[in-house]
Amino acid sequence: MKNTRLPYGVSDYPPSECYKYEAVSAKIRQSFESFGYLRVDLPSLDNFELFNGIAGATDISRMFKLTDNDGGLLVLRPDPTLQVCRMSARTNNDIDKLYYTVKSYEYLPSPDTPLQREFHQAGIELIGNSGEAGDAEIIKVAIESLLATGLKDFLIEIGHVDFLYGILHGLGFSLKDTDELRDLINIKDALGVEMFLNKRGVSAKKTTDIMSVTGLFGGEEVFEKAEKLAVGNPISIQAVRNLKIIYNSLKASGLEKYISVDFGIVKKRDYYSGIVFRGFCKSLGTVPLLSGGRYDKLMQNFGQAVLATGMAIGIRQLITALGKNAKSSVPVPHIAYIVVKATAEEEHKFVSAVRAKGKRVSKLFFESEQEIEEYCKKSGIKEWHVI
Amino acid sequence: MKNTRLPYGVSDYPPSECYKYEAVSAKIRQSFESFGYLRVDLPSLDNFELFNGIAGATDISRMFKLTDNDGGLLVLRPDPTLQVCRMSARTNNDIDKLYYTVKSYEYLPSPDTPLQREFHQAGIELIGNSGEAGDAEIIKVAIESLLATGLKDFLIEIGHVDFLYGILHGLGFSLKDTDELRDLINIKDALGVEMFLNKRGVSAKKTTDIMSVTGLFGGEEVFEKAEKLAVGNPISIQAVRNLKIIYNSLKASGLEKYISVDFGIVKKRDYYSGIVFRGFCKSLGTVPLLSGGRYDKLMQNFGQAVLATGMAIGIRQLITALGKNAKSSVPVPHIAYIVVKATAEEEHKFVSAVRAKGKRVSKLFFESEQEIEEYCKKSGIKEWHVI
Repeated sequence: MKNTRLPYGVSDYPPSECYKYEAVSAKIRQSFESFGYLRVDLPSLDNFELFNGIAGATDISRMFKLTDNDGGLLVLRPDPTLQVCRMSARTNNDIDKLYYTVKSYEYLPSPDTPLQREFHQAGIELIGNSGEAGDAEIIKVAIESLLATGLKDFLIEIGHVDFLYGILHGLGFSLKDTDELRDLINIKDALGVEMFLNKRGVSAKKTTDIMSVTGLFGGEEVFEKAEKLAVGNPISIQAVRNLKIIYNSLKASGLEKYISVDFGIVKKRDYYSGIVFRGFCKSLGTVPLLSGGRYDKLMQNFGQAVLATGMAIGIRQLITALGKNAKSSVPVPHIAYIVVKATAEEEHKFVSAVRAKGKRVSKLFFESEQEIEEYCKKSGIKEWHVI
Repeated sequence: MKNTRLPYGVSDYPPSECYKYEAVSAKIRQSFESFGYLRVDLPSLDNFELFNGIAGATDISRMFKLTDNDGGLLVLRPDPTLQVCRMSARTNNDIDKLYYTVKSYEYLPSPDTPLQREFHQAGIELIGNSGEAGDAEIIKVAIESLLATGLKDFLIEIGHVDFLYGILHGLGFSLKDTDELRDLINIKDALGVEMFLNKRGVSAKKTTDIMSVTGLFGGEEVFEKAEKLAVGNPISIQAVRNLKIIYNSLKASGLEKYISVDFGIVKKRDYYSGIVFRGFCKSLGTVPLLSGGRYDKLMQNFGQAVLATGMAIGIRQLITALGKNAKSSVPVPHIAYIVVKATAEEEHKFVSAVRAKGKRVSKLFFESEQEIEEYCKKSGIKEWHVI
């Protein structure tokens, strides 16, 4: 006898679950399309080479890898963005506005995880030179899509990879030192940061400044503080300016209540190259609902000097966040019937008549009225016939 | 620089292709639901153990295999049927009418194949004791689904695994001999069959009878010939009777023109246990458009004595067969615009007004009227604004 257990971190979805995912995905798709994004589909199975060496993308050890027939290495897609970039690189469009709703894969090392190893994502990619207006659009689409599904209590935290980088660069640190320090700041290791800076002779004042970056989040008022910290650092000044334009654009659309500016978001600069953001929802805690940002260097992997920005929503997280508001609209049959006496011709006549009215008609294979009645009551089918 | 080539046998789908698949799949889904089937979703990544040892299912060497963290073996789903059976085994429904539209995987050993290694399938499973009425329904759903997509010139060839088996069984052959002979018949190796039978002292008359099975296909008239051949073989007689009931049920629905009875369909009896069928379309040659049958023993793998029947349509094949009739309805934006002078507030006002009318509005990021005009003409966007 076979095991009915699934591998850890993957799921099957019976109708009640499947239609819930479908309903939420359909709303997101409609929202993406209302902003002019067009759908693409992508292979789950792809070349390892596509994802390898893209720092900041999924860790190699976290990819499902397979050896191909010709000795080549294949992976299950860890992230759709590079696949969309590759597709876009094949066309000669000045602007590509594309979206996907797919399942991606992450090889989580332990079964003790609430995360899925096969997980639903819906995301958009804006490929082309769009500047801050493009970043603002991506975030706007993210917010409007979440709202379209009925979610209200979410917050998108927007940061910029260049802000901290500029400040550290201004101190004359090497790239290696910058990376190390960023990692310390990322895990909010205040003592580690202090020791690190102290060892390199950085003043107490500067040290306080750098530590204060992690607390630099909130509404519009944050910009002034950030500008002060950025004084003398053109890279950081540009980052603040950049984020401010995006913020103002979102504010003009009345969306500022869904946004928090956060200069403390610390990410590596090799994948993302401008703004970075993550969406959170109270009920999900620290698990992000969505994430995105600008990645101007990705298209260079395909020999194109084209800029890009995008984001992806985790559908499972969204459904969890929606809770009871994630409606499942299972298309229960309008009518069910069993054949007891009718000939095949009589049955055909009966079915054709109701089908012609656009009804969903389910033939069942019971032998008694009691059985069909029980089944229909359990399944939510309101009308049944014994013919 | 990265390679823009995909692994062989997998594809990405830009909007024009993606929406074509989506439109055809949507029609099939609607058709399945109109017969009372409900959608499920299934993991692409599953336990090797689920598929292993099910003779007649995908060959082990044709599965994409991965080693899991705990040393277990995973595969990319070769076939959704067992996954649906497993899901059904978890519930206590007397009847489950379920469908899926997923991608499945087959490890094709050579790049020189027109087939896909990641391929779209839409299929239904009728799990529960449904008898011939269930088989007839499955074929009816198959036909109506194809018709719903606009396909007309297809033919479904229906056979029965027990017909030939009964005849060979009647000759007293061992299971091994039966298998060997069936393989010879399957590849239509007339000489091989003759030698095989001759060596075992089977009469010339019987040999001719057995060879004639491969020619036993056509319309209603075939049943009489089959009955003659089956004389004295209760298993074969039952198979003919079985198929005749199904045929008559389909005829009563006016669907006989889409059916060919074919007692020459030779399949192993370990997966399929009753009728077997395949759908063909002239333009596809020998590549089947769909296939299905009864597999009463599959649920036993999960400890349940429940019978089952089902079928799956190959979506890529269907789209190929539809040719120009496979319509792609790309939701091109109704309106596009670029911002040249407008403030963020003015832009928001403009966009809100058109979005409120339910229009799809795409912001573009060009700087001149000429650029947006060119882009819109190329993209089929009829209305554009410079604000």
